[in-house]
Amino acid sequence: VTAAASAPGRGGAYHAAVTSANPSRSLLVRAALGEPVERTPVWFMRQAGRSLPEYRRIREGVGMLESCQKPDLVAEITLQPVRRHGVDAAILYSDIVVPLAAVGVDLDIVPGAGPVVAEPIRSRADLGRLPELSPDLVSYVTDAVSLLVAELGETPLVGFAGAPFTLASYLVEGGPSRSHQHTKALMHGDPTTWHQLCARLAQISGEFLRVQVEAGASAVQLFDSWAGALPRSDYQAFVQPHSAAALGAVADAGIPRIHFGVGTGELLAGMGAAGAEVVGVDYRVSLSDAVDRLSGRYAVQGNLDPALLFAPWPVIDKAVRRILAEGASAPGHIFNLGHGVLPDTDPEVLTRVVELVHEVSQR
Amino acid sequence: VTAAASAPGRGGAYHAAVTSANPSRSLLVRAALGEPVERTPVWFMRQAGRSLPEYRRIREGVGMLESCQKPDLVAEITLQPVRRHGVDAAILYSDIVVPLAAVGVDLDIVPGAGPVVAEPIRSRADLGRLPELSPDLVSYVTDAVSLLVAELGETPLVGFAGAPFTLASYLVEGGPSRSHQHTKALMHGDPTTWHQLCARLAQISGEFLRVQVEAGASAVQLFDSWAGALPRSDYQAFVQPHSAAALGAVADAGIPRIHFGVGTGELLAGMGAAGAEVVGVDYRVSLSDAVDRLSGRYAVQGNLDPALLFAPWPVIDKAVRRILAEGASAPGHIFNLGHGVLPDTDPEVLTRVVELVHEVSQR
Repeated sequence: VTAAASAPGRGGAYHAAVTSANPSRSLLVRAALGEPVERTPVWFMRQAGRSLPEYRRIREGVGMLESCQKPDLVAEITLQPVRRHGVDAAILYSDIVVPLAAVGVDLDIVPGAGPVVAEPIRSRADLGRLPELSPDLVSYVTDAVSLLVAELGETPLVGFAGAPFTLASYLVEGGPSRSHQHTKALMHGDPTTWHQLCARLAQISGEFLRVQVEAGASAVQLFDSWAGALPRSDYQAFVQPHSAAALGAVADAGIPRIHFGVGTGELLAGMGAAGAEVVGVDYRVSLSDAVDRLSGRYAVQGNLDPALLFAPWPVIDKAVRRILAEGASAPGHIFNLGHGVLPDTDPEVLTRVVELVHEVSQR
Repeated sequence: VTAAASAPGRGGAYHAAVTSANPSRSLLVRAALGEPVERTPVWFMRQAGRSLPEYRRIREGVGMLESCQKPDLVAEITLQPVRRHGVDAAILYSDIVVPLAAVGVDLDIVPGAGPVVAEPIRSRADLGRLPELSPDLVSYVTDAVSLLVAELGETPLVGFAGAPFTLASYLVEGGPSRSHQHTKALMHGDPTTWHQLCARLAQISGEFLRVQVEAGASAVQLFDSWAGALPRSDYQAFVQPHSAAALGAVADAGIPRIHFGVGTGELLAGMGAAGAEVVGVDYRVSLSDAVDRLSGRYAVQGNLDPALLFAPWPVIDKAVRRILAEGASAPGHIFNLGHGVLPDTDPEVLTRVVELVHEVSQR
C-alpha cells in the first residue's frame, strides 16, 4: 500500500505541505484504529458528486455507469472534493452496482431513479447469472486507484463497495424499492437460495474491496444502504454473516474497515461485529447513544444531518461542535455526515464545515 | 359517542353475532386502555386500499382527494376490509392532506407520487394561507363517520389524522421528500415561524380528529409518517409539543389515542409522552424492545413486517405467534402491521392473519 502512496502528489494544491506522504499513518487511519490524532479527520459521504459544479460539468453527456469505468474520469471526480474542501480523505467515485455490471449483470443506472436490473434474480436458477468477480473484470478500478494514490500523496483513499444485502435487494427487486418485498419474501421463503445469493454477493463485494486495497486504498467503507429496512433478528440471521464475509476479504490487509447503513440505530452493534473497525452512524442516532450501543468497542463515523447544511451557519456551527464533543467519547471519531451530501448543497458550506472541524478539534 | 354507535349494524355479515353493539367497550378500546381482553384485537394500517380488488373497482375514475370527500364512498371503502377480513376495527378512509385541502391549501394527490402542494409554505408571510379548520369545512367527514358508526355496530371506528410534522413536511417541501431539507432548514433557521406553522397544523390536525370523535369514532390514530427522519433531540424540541397539542384536542373524549410513525425506534417514549394511550411500533423494532423503551407505560400496536406477507404461510404463522407472545408483555396489545399494507398484498393472506391472531390469542 505505502509503496505507491509514497509517490509525491502531482496536483499539489490540495495538500499544500506534504512532509511525509504516508496515507497509512494519516489522521483518518489513526482515528479509525483508535490511535491518538492531532485533530479529528473529516470527509463527506457523496463528497464527489452533484453538489459540485465541476462534477456536473465533467459528467455532461457521460452516463453514470460509464463514468465509473473510465480511470481518468474516476480519478478526476474523486479528487475534486479533496481539492475544493481540503477533506482528510478521498472516497473512490463509484456506484454500488459497478461490480455487478462487471460480472455481467444486465443493468443500468437511470438518472433520478437509480439502478434498474433487466432480469431480477429470484430463484436458484437465476444464480447462474452471477459469476465470481475477478480483478481483471474491474481493471479500470485498479487503474483509477493507482492514479489516485499517486496524486493524493498523504491523503488516504477510502475504497468503496455495497454490502451483500443492499446488492441483493437491487437484484431481487429489479431496482430501488422501499418495501423490499421480493427480497424479504426470498429471504424468508427460500433461505437456502438467499444464503447462496448472498454468499456470491459477498465474494463480489469483498473482491471489489480487495482490488482497491491491493491498488493502494488506505481504508474501505462497506455501504449497506438498505440494512435499516430489516428488524435486528433478520439482520443477524440473514445479512450479517455475508457482510462479515465481504469485510473478511480485506481482513489481513491491516487497513481500517468502515461499515455504514442508513437508519441502522437498531443494528449498530451487529454491524460492528461483522468485522468493522469503524461504525458509521446515521444522523438519527446521537453519537453518544451510538458509543453506548457499541460498548465503546469501535471508532465511530458521522453524523451531521445533511439537511442541516441548508440551515443558517450558526445552526451548523453549533451542531458540528456538539458532534465533535460527542465523538470524543468514542475510541476514535471520523467526522462525516449522517448520510450522503444532498445534491442541492452549497459546496461552500461543506468547505466551511471542514475548516470548523479542523479548528475546533485541534489538540 | 355511544348514542350513534348503539344503532345496530345494517350490513350484518361482517359482525355475525352482535350482542351488545357498543364499540366503546370493544376489544380494541379495552386493549388500548390496558383492560383485560378475551383475545387480541387486530386491524391493518391501509387495510382499506389498493390490496382489495373491490377498492380498485370502486376507485376507478375517481381521484384520491375526491374519493375522500364523498361520504358514501368513504363509508363503503372503510367497510370493505371489515367485511372481507373480519378485522376488529375500521379505520376511516382518508388521506393526511384532506384537512389541508379543506382549509384551502391548493394541493393534489398525484398517483404514484403523493401529495403535491402548488405553493410551498416557507416563510411567515405564507402562514396566512393556512387558516383554522372548522367542522363545517369537513362536513363530509362528519357525514361519513355517522354513516359508518351506524353500519359498524359494535366494531369500533378508528379516526385518523396526520401529525403536524408530517403535514409541515408536505407543505414546506411542496411534496414528498426523503431529505426534508427545506423543512429542517426552516425548523432550525427560523424556529419562530416553524412553531407558528406547527401550532396552526396542530389546530387543524386536532380539530380533524375532534370532528371524527364527535361523530362517533371510538379511537383515533395520529400518523406522524416522517417523524423517523428526525434525531431525537429535534423531535423533542420541534415536533413533540405540536403532536401533544393535536392529541390534546381529543383528550377529554375518553377514547384511546394511538400514535404511530415509521422508523421511530429512537422516538417511541417521546411519542407516548405526547399524549397517546397506544404507541404504534414500526417493524424494525421488536415489540419486546418497544415495551422496554416505553417502560411498560403504554399499550403497543404492531408490528408484523408488511413485506413478510409475501413469504410462504409458515413464515407468517411463526412471525404472528412471536409478535403475539412479545405483545403479551405490554399493558395492552393491538395486533397490526409495522407499516401499511403493500398494494400487491394478497388479501386472502390478510384474512388468514386475522383468523390466526384470533385463534392464537384466545384466552
